[in-house]
Amino acid sequence: MTDFAATRRAFHLPQGITYLDGNSLGPMPIAARDRVARMMTEEWSEMLIGGWNRAGWYVQPRKVGDRIARLIGAGPGQVVMGDTLTIKVFQAVSAALRLRPGRRVILSDSGNFPSDLYVAEGLARAVGAELRVVAPDEVEAAIAPDLAVLMLTEVDYRTGRRHDMAALTARAHDAGALTVWDLAHSAGAVDVDLTGADADFAVGCTYKYLNGGPGAPAFIWTHPRHADAAQPVLQGWMGHDAPFAFDMDYRPASGVERMRVGTPPVIALTALDAALDVWDGVALPDLRARSVDLTEAFIAGVEAECPDLVLNSPRDPGKRGSQVGFRHPQGYAIMQALIAEGVVGDFRAPDVLRFGFAPLYNHADDVARAVGTLARILHKGTWKNDMFHRKAAVT
Amino acid sequence: MTDFAATRRAFHLPQGITYLDGNSLGPMPIAARDRVARMMTEEWSEMLIGGWNRAGWYVQPRKVGDRIARLIGAGPGQVVMGDTLTIKVFQAVSAALRLRPGRRVILSDSGNFPSDLYVAEGLARAVGAELRVVAPDEVEAAIAPDLAVLMLTEVDYRTGRRHDMAALTARAHDAGALTVWDLAHSAGAVDVDLTGADADFAVGCTYKYLNGGPGAPAFIWTHPRHADAAQPVLQGWMGHDAPFAFDMDYRPASGVERMRVGTPPVIALTALDAALDVWDGVALPDLRARSVDLTEAFIAGVEAECPDLVLNSPRDPGKRGSQVGFRHPQGYAIMQALIAEGVVGDFRAPDVLRFGFAPLYNHADDVARAVGTLARILHKGTWKNDMFHRKAAVT
Repeated sequence: MTDFAATRRAFHLPQGITYLDGNSLGPMPIAARDRVARMMTEEWSEMLIGGWNRAGWYVQPRKVGDRIARLIGAGPGQVVMGDTLTIKVFQAVSAALRLRPGRRVILSDSGNFPSDLYVAEGLARAVGAELRVVAPDEVEAAIAPDLAVLMLTEVDYRTGRRHDMAALTARAHDAGALTVWDLAHSAGAVDVDLTGADADFAVGCTYKYLNGGPGAPAFIWTHPRHADAAQPVLQGWMGHDAPFAFDMDYRPASGVERMRVGTPPVIALTALDAALDVWDGVALPDLRARSVDLTEAFIAGVEAECPDLVLNSPRDPGKRGSQVGFRHPQGYAIMQALIAEGVVGDFRAPDVLRFGFAPLYNHADDVARAVGTLARILHKGTWKNDMFHRKAAVT
Repeated sequence: MTDFAATRRAFHLPQGITYLDGNSLGPMPIAARDRVARMMTEEWSEMLIGGWNRAGWYVQPRKVGDRIARLIGAGPGQVVMGDTLTIKVFQAVSAALRLRPGRRVILSDSGNFPSDLYVAEGLARAVGAELRVVAPDEVEAAIAPDLAVLMLTEVDYRTGRRHDMAALTARAHDAGALTVWDLAHSAGAVDVDLTGADADFAVGCTYKYLNGGPGAPAFIWTHPRHADAAQPVLQGWMGHDAPFAFDMDYRPASGVERMRVGTPPVIALTALDAALDVWDGVALPDLRARSVDLTEAFIAGVEAECPDLVLNSPRDPGKRGSQVGFRHPQGYAIMQALIAEGVVGDFRAPDVLRFGFAPLYNHADDVARAVGTLARILHKGTWKNDMFHRKAAVT
């Protein structure tokens, strides 16, 4: 059994805060700060340029990738780190498009991150493809024989709805298309199984449930059947077969390494590597069971004590990730009042209060406190105070 | 007058090492480690998601960009940070291409970084453009009326040859083309003046002469005349006019902010921000004068004491950046022997010993020691020892 009391102790959580916003930014694993300081003192300071070999900076994107692979149902050597999620979406979708010559349609849904849609639209315009966006429950019906790439985010960032990755991948394959899965709200939150679902490409960020720190590097996975066939559009030197030969011609590295682009962000990867230590003893079925327990208890508690809030997430835990949304016309002010009382979730326009449950550090007491505080705020009308209605520049 | 004794004291330089490889990776500014630790303790740990507003993480890419702007002859609000240099090259060249509809030729030279050529070639193939590569001294003659984009690295990473940015930009403009300048070996090394040269786009990395740490974020500059017209191909949410509105449609931010892509790398930007403190009292004419003094003294010393080495850099300092190359058929082994004696330069195939002089921390004693050690190794034939002929996996 996974020891979730131990994983919770691995984090710094501010005094008095119940943190239910790990789906925006995970808290700091205590080991991360010292690991980064040590890397800076012992590696950068002392080894200088020699750190690329001696400290293993050069192979870090693959070594850290291997640690994430276990959490998403992928094998060793199949995941590589770097850049941001937006860049990785661009790489995966452009590579998938090239593997389906003659087809030009990218299909996605309105539950996807706007950023994924933006970057796919930018790519489509540049290469003469077409982005089609449908409602999440219309995706299956929209998979047509002209489809090149099905690009979806597994868990909806607002509703927590979880797509059936295996079923939709099978449908896409039946139509001759490839799939790109964004795991931003899945990796570290649910029991992702890319291999079992027979997916083609996957990407994700590491600053949410993987707790790598603000702006931590992204990951990309390529199914082994595509790894040596995928032709990158972003041809960077670190994805070259022999980066230090400084050949004039680009020759992609074998496997997923060709999805590396520029010089890897060593300091950030070091923080992330420390954050991944926390996962070492965690079994994915335990993670999933705990996530379901937490979200079920929260939904039951809020529905019992806060009748004005309307559930904005699937009721069936099998169709839900590790987050829960509730709607209220005054959602923004209510969330501000909640944060002022030390319960941190977040708000998504127009009216959604969003709560992320991170099994590594959230426990039953967090659920009880969040429900109790929310009920009190609604009962007393605390949120009507003017100060809770002022919007910050960035939320 | 710039106090270069003070700037030197701002760095951690390992005991006994003369470091002449700052053009690969700058040493650690002492303040960087504590700044990062403080950011992790006081901001990430305590503010959690609130750090985006309260600690200014969201505006950090522009604030750090403003600090770099001064070092490259750009104005405030014209430079933004993020990603890697390879990604920024892709963004700049693709944006420039779009500003020249009907033209499809990208011109570069064989003195450019292979990575810049790889990424331009990948872009060209994706969008139906053409990359032409000529020898560095044939660039001017190759600027033809069909040219869309002239993409050059100002200072050659092997020879240190410095292009005449103003003259080549004027020639490109006469032909109706735009320019993209890679400043990887210029920023922090020479007196770059983008505004004076009337350039169109510029990009650079920050882990060389700007000392931001291994894999530190890159920068991009757009001339104000293009900033609101440049249409990004990499349409990321951070380049959106209202990233937190989560609109379904992409609407680029005004100015260079549209060249932001994904979530900014806060830990890495914090290290870089600390590294930029060292530049606060540095005047670019002083930097340039000191760089010329160091490289002139090194060339004179080596030519006097090491007759077997052949200069591989322009003799005229006006045509040279802040690095010097010498050729020798046994260059690799000689560099290994030199490193073993504590003088760290690097080797570039097939036969170039490369020495970078960073005015912020290199001084006359470094030149004297490097010359003396090199002369001794050549005189005694120390480099013939077998151990200096084994090649590391990564150099």
